[in-house]
Parts: sequence; structure tokens; C-alpha cells
Amino acid sequence: MKRKFEFAKGLIREAGAFIINKMMDKMQIQMKERFDDLVTNIDKEVQDLIISRIKDLYPKDNILAEENNVRHEWNKGNVWVIDPIDGTVNFIAQKSDFVVMVAYFEEGVGRFGLIYDVMNDVLYSGGGDFLVYRNQEKLSPYKKKELHQMLVISNAKMFAENDHGIADLVSHSLGCRNYGSAGFSMGRVLNGQAWAYFSYVYPWDYAAASIMGETLGYQLLTLSGEKPDFKTRQKIMFFPTIDEEVIHQFIQENKK
Amino acid sequence: MKRKFEFAKGLIREAGAFIINKMMDKMQIQMKERFDDLVTNIDKEVQDLIISRIKDLYPKDNILAEENNVRHEWNKGNVWVIDPIDGTVNFIAQKSDFVVMVAYFEEGVGRFGLIYDVMNDVLYSGGGDFLVYRNQEKLSPYKKKELHQMLVISNAKMFAENDHGIADLVSHSLGCRNYGSAGFSMGRVLNGQAWAYFSYVYPWDYAAASIMGETLGYQLLTLSGEKPDFKTRQKIMFFPTIDEEVIHQFIQENKK
Repeated sequence: MKRKFEFAKGLIREAGAFIINKMMDKMQIQMKERFDDLVTNIDKEVQDLIISRIKDLYPKDNILAEENNVRHEWNKGNVWVIDPIDGTVNFIAQKSDFVVMVAYFEEGVGRFGLIYDVMNDVLYSGGGDFLVYRNQEKLSPYKKKELHQMLVISNAKMFAENDHGIADLVSHSLGCRNYGSAGFSMGRVLNGQAWAYFSYVYPWDYAAASIMGETLGYQLLTLSGEKPDFKTRQKIMFFPTIDEEVIHQFIQENKK
Repeated sequence: MKRKFEFAKGLIREAGAFIINKMMDKMQIQMKERFDDLVTNIDKEVQDLIISRIKDLYPKDNILAEENNVRHEWNKGNVWVIDPIDGTVNFIAQKSDFVVMVAYFEEGVGRFGLIYDVMNDVLYSGGGDFLVYRNQEKLSPYKKKELHQMLVISNAKMFAENDHGIADLVSHSLGCRNYGSAGFSMGRVLNGQAWAYFSYVYPWDYAAASIMGETLGYQLLTLSGEKPDFKTRQKIMFFPTIDEEVIHQFIQENKK
């Protein structure tokens, strides 16, 4: 497994370098479901690159990935979950605050996850049998903090609508931030810069963080308190496991 | 003026280095008006440092600054407007995404402004007779873009309440971001990463950006469309001057 993990770390940095190279050229931007749901040729090319490298070394492994409808079931066999560019809108409009993510599962057991903040050259990696690092720095497991001393990161619309009581919770915290990339945001939770994250996301958005989070004392659940399904888009929360009571004080089904 | 501008650039980098040094020690945190309105000993020490350096060289110049009630009127004589740490909550909780800001006025005319993103070592500087730079890179004046291709940065509460129609405007853009520091956010507008910024801020939060913005084709107005008063806390918008019509399509008095 160590060999596979080291391979994944090299691969995600290669993907980052590929993106930086490609950013110089004019990119092609396409709409997906809405005018603000975008994909570029680079998203697809990076995904192809990552998949081909995996298939070269591990031809029997399977892939669940964001683009091009590559959708192996996450818990059947060896499965790599790939988000080639998370925060594509940031990538296009800001040229920063986007990440590449890779997560690796065996029969539904998370073995390791990686989140690579390309422009800041920050790699979060680990989980499963591996300690979690932010580049060379070993991250410490979550230590109890008070909500009123911490920031919350939330999808702007869900905060605005007080979805499941998110705004009620935020009103007891130091405030709300919104960065427009799930991986970028959950990296900040893993790094202790924010207490929790709320959003409406797909499996490739949360797979890597959920594996690393388990190692550091965080869990990822739907807003109804269930394990996410690793299939559909769901409203999720990523928060310290020992603070489950604090979460349930505020986050409740059908609360608006 | 060149000499004064060069002095200011050196001074703001000195302030940044001072903050990084001090961050190693345990800081004292105090509440101001509310539990989420915080100030640290470092805010005050940095401000004292900046003021003493200015007074050493320019003893007749005046100061308008965030902490300790230093409130010379911005348009009477030579006035330095100082925000020692903008984004104090980020500074405390994240140790990133905060800036030092300095703006310099003569009889109410903006001569130059500086925003220093300490942890990323990014300095925005210029305005008045000076071109605007992001570190060594000269920034280009705003070129017309379409709202649906751009991001908006907004105070989370004002977005949530659709204050003056901010959420209506955002719904026609690529989306909303919220970073928790006025200077950090307006730096992204100056840099072309976001189209506009909306918040509820004090003079030291907007003085530097407003001076640099004029040079690059942006203006800073209250949500009612007036010049800000440089005295009280006001709801403001910072946006491309040539897009005033787009703004007024959405941002309107008493609209909720």
C-alpha cells in the first residue's frame, strides 16, 4: 500500500504541473447543467492523464471520476475516486483556489486520500494506515475547541437559506467563509483553520477529505446524519466527531 | 511623493515581518463590540509601530487608524489611514487571509494606497501618480467583462439578506465568495479575480483599495451610490466604473 500511496502523491503533483502548463494556453469552457456549472478541456485532459497513469500501473483497478461519466461503484474492488479540478469556476475566473483530488478505496474501505491545492503548492495526504500530512508537516488530530472561537465554511446558498439550521449554527461561531471549492475548504478544516464545512456535493468532492478526516477525528455525514451514498449529489457536513452533539443542537431535518 | 511611497512600501513589509514574528508567541485576544469582533495585542503593537515610523520621518503628518481611537479627519492636511490587521478574525482563527493596509491622502486627495497580504507575501501598491502593482507585476486597468463570467465577493450576511439586491446580482454572476477581510477581497477585485465587492466597513477598510481602484477603473461607493464618508461604518460596493449601469440594474435602495 505504501508503494501505491507514494505513486498517488507523485501522480497528483504531476497533474498539478500539467494544469499549470496548460493554463498558459487559451482554454475551452463548456457549460454543463447551468451557466455557472462549467467544465474546461483541462479538467478532462487532467482526468485522462490521471486515469491513464493508474491504468498503466494497476490495470485491474477501477475508476469513479467526475468527467466523462466514468462511474465504477466506489465499494466494489479497488477503486480510485478522482476529481481532476475541484473548483472549476475558481480555476476559470480566479486562476487560484482549486484543487486536484484522488481517493483510493478497497472494497469500500478508504486507504488514502489526497487534496492538492495547485497554485499554493499545498498537498494534504494520508488516511487509512497513513498519518495525514500538509506537505511535510504532520497534522494533529482535532482537539476540542469552542464553536464561538472557530470559523465555519459553508455553501453560500445553504447559509443564506438557513438550510437545516446552518445560519443558526454560524451565528454562534466566529463567522462564515465561502471559498468555492470543496477540497480547498475541507483542507482548511483538516488543517484546523475552520471547524466545519457544509455543502451540496458529489462523491469525488468529498471522498479524499472523508478518508483523511477519519484519521484526524472528523466525520463526513449528510445533513440528515447518514453516511453519504458515494453516488448522488448530497448535502453534507464535515465536522469533528467529538462535537456531534454541538452539530445536532443546530443542524436538524426540515429546519429553515 | 516617490520617496514617501517607497517609505510606505518598506514600512508595510516591516509591519508584516513584525506580525509573523509575533505570531509565534501567545497572543492576547480581546472582544470589542461583540464576541466575534476581536482585537489582539498584535493589532495594537503593529499600529504603534507604523505610527511611530511615520512620526519619526514626517512629524507633522496626521493619522486616522483603526485601534485606540486615533481619528484625524481624513481630508485635513497630510493624513495616513492605517489598518494594522484587516481580517483579525482570520488572523486569530486561520493565521492566514489577513492584510495590513496603509493609505495616504493630502487634503482629501488620495496619493497612494497599499494592501499587504502578509502570509502570501503579496503587496498591492500604487494609485494617485503611481501605477498599481501586485508585487513586481503591473496590474492592467479593468477591461469590460460580462457579469455571468465573473465572481462577486460579498459579506455573508448582506448576501443572505439580499441587502439592496446583492443576491439578485449574484444570481447573474458565477457565484459568491466570502473571505472575511476587506483588503484581501478588494485585492482580488484589483487583480481581476472578482468583479465586485460588497460589505459593511470602516474608512481604514476601504481607503487603500479606493485609491488604487481609481487608477485601475474601479470606484467605491455606498450602496446608495454616494461617496463614502471616511468617518462611519457604511455599506459599500467596489466595482468597475464602466459597469455602473449593470450595478444599478440590481443594487437599489430599500430593495430586499
